[in-house]
Amino acid sequence: MNRVPLEKKVLSENDRIAAELRKRFHEKGLLCLNLISSPGSGKTALLEKTLEALPKSERVAVLTGDIQTENDAARLRRFGFPVKQITTGGTCHLDARMIERHLADWRLDEIDLLIFENVGNLVCPSSYDLGEAAKVVLLSVTEGEDKPLKYPSIFFKSELLVITKTDLLPYVPFDIDKAEENARRVHPGMEIIRTSSTKGTGLNDWLGWLERGKSTATARAGTLP
Amino acid sequence: MNRVPLEKKVLSENDRIAAELRKRFHEKGLLCLNLISSPGSGKTALLEKTLEALPKSERVAVLTGDIQTENDAARLRRFGFPVKQITTGGTCHLDARMIERHLADWRLDEIDLLIFENVGNLVCPSSYDLGEAAKVVLLSVTEGEDKPLKYPSIFFKSELLVITKTDLLPYVPFDIDKAEENARRVHPGMEIIRTSSTKGTGLNDWLGWLERGKSTATARAGTLP
Repeated sequence: MNRVPLEKKVLSENDRIAAELRKRFHEKGLLCLNLISSPGSGKTALLEKTLEALPKSERVAVLTGDIQTENDAARLRRFGFPVKQITTGGTCHLDARMIERHLADWRLDEIDLLIFENVGNLVCPSSYDLGEAAKVVLLSVTEGEDKPLKYPSIFFKSELLVITKTDLLPYVPFDIDKAEENARRVHPGMEIIRTSSTKGTGLNDWLGWLERGKSTATARAGTLP
Repeated sequence: MNRVPLEKKVLSENDRIAAELRKRFHEKGLLCLNLISSPGSGKTALLEKTLEALPKSERVAVLTGDIQTENDAARLRRFGFPVKQITTGGTCHLDARMIERHLADWRLDEIDLLIFENVGNLVCPSSYDLGEAAKVVLLSVTEGEDKPLKYPSIFFKSELLVITKTDLLPYVPFDIDKAEENARRVHPGMEIIRTSSTKGTGLNDWLGWLERGKSTATARAGTLP
């Protein structure tokens, strides 16, 4: 089976489009993030809390991916910011062409923070560059602290680990220090934020991380990446 | 990009091997199951409870898949039954050839119940037949009740839905009746068992389901599938 060469071809086509997207994001000085996790780790919940907390003047936009349903976009549109659903119709990840197509009628110079919520999948999305400045991986405390060792690629490639659902820690056998240790075995120096969207824990740390990222993106706008 | 024809070729090669495996399982009268869920939904925990509950005379064997680590096999070997880890090294699902290779030195006529624990992924494993008599999908109550609508393929293809971690219901916003309703919108008549591996809830229902499956497999051994 000549599978590997074709995968390479698909990926290099994806990389070409992603590089063009990255260049456009960079020129505009906008911060683009790619959120990745298992299904049900709380990507949409974190985004709800984020959009709720941001001032209405904030220039943020979200593309949210799912195999089927517009549920996530419906949840996120309530906050008044631009949100589009990408329904992949079976595909297990977002790719750069989907992003390019769904951005076509948005003006990038009116956006400072662009967030992609990937399809719920801890494996495949890690292989597809979307032109983002950083990947962010979420891991909920219900999933087990060995996940960074079992799914090393996405933990290695992500700038930030957001541990979610810490409000459930009293009820689950999850060693959060061990989880962080495992993440840093795969990715030494990885930044980590502990959050609970239900309780609001860690939300300020997350918003602060976003703010620093935006400042860096603005400062670097138009310079060579 | 000629991606679709190649995917078809890969899948038809997989289907050919899976059909051979199914024929062998059928001739021996063994029950083969393919367990699929998101990462951290509790496949290994359910299998731990299952192996712990079964009499030592039970002829059960497990192949457990992960991208990296032998953690799951180590957890499952404690119960004295044959267990092998399949480490896929990046691949997001088990395929029939991996199964064929890892079964090569096991005597199938010494096994009545053969369980595959797939890679944690709610998307890709649904496309790869492993020769199993039935797929079983797990969904934990921490994941959200809309998952059957967002990931319809695996809920449509599975004979049984095992809802896991019901001990966490008091602490999460999960409507279990709605989750079951969503599963049955995708797959009318789907069998559903509610479980908590921590509390032992529903374990007898699950063991009863296995027992009925084994009886059916034995009764049909050698007849045309």
